[in-house]
Amino acid sequence: MNIRKLVKPNIRSLKAYHAEEIPCMVKLDANESPYGSRVLKSVMTNRYPDPEASALRKIVAKEYKVRPENLLHGNGSDELIYNLIAAFGGPVLFPVPTFSMYGIIAQILGEKKTGVPLDKKFDIDTKEFLKNMNRRKPGLIFLSSPNNPTGNCFSYSRILKIIRESKGLVIVDEAYQPYSEKNKFMPLLGKYKNLVILRTLSKIGLAGLRVGFMAADAEIINEVNKVRLPFNLNSLSQNVAIEVLKNRKKLDSGVRSIISERKKLLQEMRKIKGVKPYPSDANFILFKVQDADKVYNRLLGKGILIRNMKGIFEGCLRVTVGAPKENAAFLKAL
Amino acid sequence: MNIRKLVKPNIRSLKAYHAEEIPCMVKLDANESPYGSRVLKSVMTNRYPDPEASALRKIVAKEYKVRPENLLHGNGSDELIYNLIAAFGGPVLFPVPTFSMYGIIAQILGEKKTGVPLDKKFDIDTKEFLKNMNRRKPGLIFLSSPNNPTGNCFSYSRILKIIRESKGLVIVDEAYQPYSEKNKFMPLLGKYKNLVILRTLSKIGLAGLRVGFMAADAEIINEVNKVRLPFNLNSLSQNVAIEVLKNRKKLDSGVRSIISERKKLLQEMRKIKGVKPYPSDANFILFKVQDADKVYNRLLGKGILIRNMKGIFEGCLRVTVGAPKENAAFLKAL
Repeated sequence: MNIRKLVKPNIRSLKAYHAEEIPCMVKLDANESPYGSRVLKSVMTNRYPDPEASALRKIVAKEYKVRPENLLHGNGSDELIYNLIAAFGGPVLFPVPTFSMYGIIAQILGEKKTGVPLDKKFDIDTKEFLKNMNRRKPGLIFLSSPNNPTGNCFSYSRILKIIRESKGLVIVDEAYQPYSEKNKFMPLLGKYKNLVILRTLSKIGLAGLRVGFMAADAEIINEVNKVRLPFNLNSLSQNVAIEVLKNRKKLDSGVRSIISERKKLLQEMRKIKGVKPYPSDANFILFKVQDADKVYNRLLGKGILIRNMKGIFEGCLRVTVGAPKENAAFLKAL
Repeated sequence: MNIRKLVKPNIRSLKAYHAEEIPCMVKLDANESPYGSRVLKSVMTNRYPDPEASALRKIVAKEYKVRPENLLHGNGSDELIYNLIAAFGGPVLFPVPTFSMYGIIAQILGEKKTGVPLDKKFDIDTKEFLKNMNRRKPGLIFLSSPNNPTGNCFSYSRILKIIRESKGLVIVDEAYQPYSEKNKFMPLLGKYKNLVILRTLSKIGLAGLRVGFMAADAEIINEVNKVRLPFNLNSLSQNVAIEVLKNRKKLDSGVRSIISERKKLLQEMRKIKGVKPYPSDANFILFKVQDADKVYNRLLGKGILIRNMKGIFEGCLRVTVGAPKENAAFLKAL
């Protein structure tokens, strides 16, 4: 697969901005102010952030078992979706319902987009999806697995079939993967050149930082890097993420607790009459009720905010798995 | 001026993402993790940032003497340039040499761009500029004033003429304005609907935070907001910026010190044979030497990093005004 041929013509001749790190005693090259504050022990606010996020990428690479040159950092994975579509262009293809930003960003960037409805089990409708692939020849396919808002992973074999048959890039968005015991696509990176994997720190306790990553072939990373703004990840987020990831115990125990709470929550929800929860590989549960608006408003009246899927998945609500006390309050109110 | 007509067709039918802030006791709607750390007293890492940056915009609005609805926050002003070009499209027109990102981002987004050379005094060449305006009908004009890398403000009357005669938006990028005693365009906001002003916290001691702002008519803000990613400004940067701006004394004294150091630095540089510094309204000084590469490398050999303008402004170097000790070290080495 020739990656350069997939890039939009206006991107092809660009070079990624290269901010060279030059060791020096007196740094007077970047129009920074010499007067800053040390808000975190390791951060001087007056200096520009590391444009390559080298220290952070190194730690994350080790965790994902990839090489740092196969990783690119985004101001949230939202920004990486933006960058991917800016670099490679459309048409953009994805199953629906799914994460809304794929379609929104495609429209922002003036690219065509098509959503192919999921089958009755919330899995990819392979026949319809392949038909759309052949007809529309998408430059980019987005597969969120575990999928938001349905909560399930798509079947491994169906994703694999799409990766194999696609002539464009296939982005497997694993934002919720830490909560799943199923398919991880990271090990397939070396095997399929058109495979891109998105990950984020937002779902495991660091949403406020806006740190996302894409993992892909170095050639893809290089093209996307061209459309990335040089200082897209601020110093505070880089440094807090490094500190948190250095000591993963707290993050990991949080994830384990959510998984165990999800099981309990599902069991209890199944016992409630008129509530039909769907299985979940993510940190949320989609469920059907008779009158979604009414349930949503009643819960809110009791101070409990969940997501009404109106317009996306009629008649459904989505509850994030919280801490034990929060889940208990939700169950009681429901 | 009909702003909606200026927006690219694919943007017109979009609505800005609206993340409603709903008061609640138990928040289970956004797939956040309940487990976070309090890295700053005011920030829980597990929650998404305020997408509207309301508290920060309020403080900044007061400072700029505009209303919060006339302000939009960016992950650095780089991102706002990206958003402006994504929303309004090209052709993009700017004087050269100037801040490189205008041209780079135009190319990233597939828009045409033209640089019109400055006159001999580094001011806008009005005749040539207007000729290009009439011929190319730019959707966006970028005027960096004070201009990077030349350091001077463009004349007020020439900028005004361009604002008046342009049928597209005119963006006056005042990144370096705090260091200038000249033209401020903020007071003209109500008068010219096509005027957009860019500001940043990067040059006054907060480059690591990546916080930029655009000020404009609310209709322009609304259009650009459509192409902005909802959580573009992370919680840490929002909160640190608020804390720093609440107590401006340190920032202001830093700016005053730079202005006074700039004067001294200019005087001393003028005394050095073979060094020709240009006047500056910014926190850097552009200067000409006989052999720029040699001077650059010699300084670096002594641990002093400045910017070689090779390829942008042949034979010139650019030095950021630093703290008194840093400037003394630079002068001694020079």
